[in-house]
Amino acid sequence: MEVDNNTVSLGEFEFECGETIPELEVAYETYGEFDGDNAVLVCHALTGSAHVASQGRFQDADQAFAWWDDIVGPGKAIDTNEYFVVCVNVPGSCYGTSGPASENPETGEPYATAFPPVTVTDWTEAQRLVLDELGVPHLHAVVGGSVGGMNALEWVKRHPDHVEKVASVAAAPRLDAQCLALDSIAQRAITTDPDWNDGHYYGDDGDHPDEGLALARQLGHVMYFSKSSMERRFGRRAATREFEREFPTDPAGRFFPYRDVESFLDYNSTKFVERFDANSYLYLTRAMDNYDLSAGFESDADALAAFDGEALLVSFTGDWHFTTEQSEALAEAFRETDTDTAHHVVDSDYGHDAFLVEPDRVGPPLSDFLEEGLTGNAISDTVDDDDDDGGNDYAPVHTSLFS
Amino acid sequence: MEVDNNTVSLGEFEFECGETIPELEVAYETYGEFDGDNAVLVCHALTGSAHVASQGRFQDADQAFAWWDDIVGPGKAIDTNEYFVVCVNVPGSCYGTSGPASENPETGEPYATAFPPVTVTDWTEAQRLVLDELGVPHLHAVVGGSVGGMNALEWVKRHPDHVEKVASVAAAPRLDAQCLALDSIAQRAITTDPDWNDGHYYGDDGDHPDEGLALARQLGHVMYFSKSSMERRFGRRAATREFEREFPTDPAGRFFPYRDVESFLDYNSTKFVERFDANSYLYLTRAMDNYDLSAGFESDADALAAFDGEALLVSFTGDWHFTTEQSEALAEAFRETDTDTAHHVVDSDYGHDAFLVEPDRVGPPLSDFLEEGLTGNAISDTVDDDDDDGGNDYAPVHTSLFS
Repeated sequence: MEVDNNTVSLGEFEFECGETIPELEVAYETYGEFDGDNAVLVCHALTGSAHVASQGRFQDADQAFAWWDDIVGPGKAIDTNEYFVVCVNVPGSCYGTSGPASENPETGEPYATAFPPVTVTDWTEAQRLVLDELGVPHLHAVVGGSVGGMNALEWVKRHPDHVEKVASVAAAPRLDAQCLALDSIAQRAITTDPDWNDGHYYGDDGDHPDEGLALARQLGHVMYFSKSSMERRFGRRAATREFEREFPTDPAGRFFPYRDVESFLDYNSTKFVERFDANSYLYLTRAMDNYDLSAGFESDADALAAFDGEALLVSFTGDWHFTTEQSEALAEAFRETDTDTAHHVVDSDYGHDAFLVEPDRVGPPLSDFLEEGLTGNAISDTVDDDDDDGGNDYAPVHTSLFS
Repeated sequence: MEVDNNTVSLGEFEFECGETIPELEVAYETYGEFDGDNAVLVCHALTGSAHVASQGRFQDADQAFAWWDDIVGPGKAIDTNEYFVVCVNVPGSCYGTSGPASENPETGEPYATAFPPVTVTDWTEAQRLVLDELGVPHLHAVVGGSVGGMNALEWVKRHPDHVEKVASVAAAPRLDAQCLALDSIAQRAITTDPDWNDGHYYGDDGDHPDEGLALARQLGHVMYFSKSSMERRFGRRAATREFEREFPTDPAGRFFPYRDVESFLDYNSTKFVERFDANSYLYLTRAMDNYDLSAGFESDADALAAFDGEALLVSFTGDWHFTTEQSEALAEAFRETDTDTAHHVVDSDYGHDAFLVEPDRVGPPLSDFLEEGLTGNAISDTVDDDDDDGGNDYAPVHTSLFS
């Protein structure tokens, strides 16, 4: 597999808000060879990077893990022997693309919170410019999970004639009030950390808002799991002795066990803080909160109306962050405009994380979709699927059969 | 209605952990007249007080609101013309009963985190001592919601011969991993606030960990609402102009709207911080986390086996904090020991808050239960209720009909 790991300078960039920066640097990776008609853009989720697959190269120590390594690679669902896969780190992030932690060339200092606010539209336009640089005028497909699935939808909305197929996995046309609330709490955990210092914490000698960012990440983890998967994985067990509390407590607190679920959250958030920038977390969650497919249009269907390709929505029954119900609303919007559409519902209680941790169930429909389109055997749809587990018989997540 | 609002000193008190304090002061309120056989103990939830009903007296400015005023009072579901209602503020709280903010008579300083860790067992034993002081040997009923419902269960477990009826509303035999995780994040929000200062923040001149406590409360609010009730109440609307951000943000953050749901969380958490002590929040959430009905027994059923009275469980379909499924597990444990039991499921999407905000649906079954027992018309049961909305056909909360 040919792998290319680069940063491209796109010159002055105007953000959706109207502000500009003199030089937008964008980190991207490509896998496979471009044959003129086989480009697949993969859009990463909130804290992902351009490093979607690991093959053929070392992983940088400070790089995010290869986040979809089970899905993207030679012979895998998104087969890099067949497709030219491109993944672009989004503006506002901290994995090589310009963001708050980047140096402002006009001052020689990090932008910090003087970096312009970013939106999913900005991500999409930056990706389009990178594809222009790579000589890719047209996408066979755009694929993304979570907010990356919103990013994929934005491609269809803004560049309907340059995309043949869109696969939006574990996504939604917009966040609901509960997710907005949880994100706002996470954001406040960062901005109320005194070490955040209005976003100006860069430099070797200062403290970073690590505790606020850790809390934000812990909240994210709870959002990514389902209630039942947390219960199955952790229950009420105490942590094994090798793990010790990483956060302050008091004598009365030590009377109670340090639980496995706490230990998991502490360990993972401590690791996360080492690899992610707190301001980037603010910027990217705000972009996700702000995303609304229908913005500028009368409805979601109107926003998607100019697209003539095929659409695959994949959702997971245990996902309470981006629900099956929301993906079905998306599917209905596509169907309203006579787009060939399938909504493939995966029965999984892994929660939102399922799009990362259930590759055996996500890969086959994606592979079929890229190769054959919606007629692929591995793809089911909520419309023509009339067995007991399917149909249009939706129940809102968070309510039981009693409702 | 006769109302009595008192504090009683119970002398030296030994907590479950083995530690003692020289003087446990307990705040309680009573409503109505005791006739020897009509005492109803009402157990408050996490941040409640002894002030369960408002009638007949002024509300102190620094007191919690009368938290079940729609349920308890003359002619109401728990009718204070008929019953002698007692409500006791639990040890560890901050509404008149000894807790971390109370003065340690041996030092003249607040206990702070030298106050012993408290458990639901300690709450129960303190309530028993107050009832002894009041000359009430026997309870017609013990009733409680949320962790107050756990408190009611603990009464049945520890004092099975002194309780005729137990009503546990929106409760569970123990928290699951998701709730433990969310509570641990809330606790860390407090302990990582630098103004927490290992719990020693009392005194007029110091800062209190207000931002940590506010975050903890905001997280609680999300837990108390259902996903659909938040969407219906707030959606993605921007807050009206009169509300301004109460938490720090930055220029990029101000590009995005301040949403109604954020404004709600900010306003309510700011109010909460004025009335509640951060250490008490730590102590009481830990007691809730720690509660396990089966502790010391082989099973929940074993823990309940000595009880010969009647049990009413009330749950709400939209409650993802203490689920209908958990109340059904409780009902099964009662039934296993041949206790007369009903599990009354209320179809409500208000979430956990339903036990407070749906008095028209909570009151009638409680009223019938106290007056007539389980044969009351307003009481349904999951066993003999075979209409479309009932039966034993449970789906776990957080999954849809697809699972």
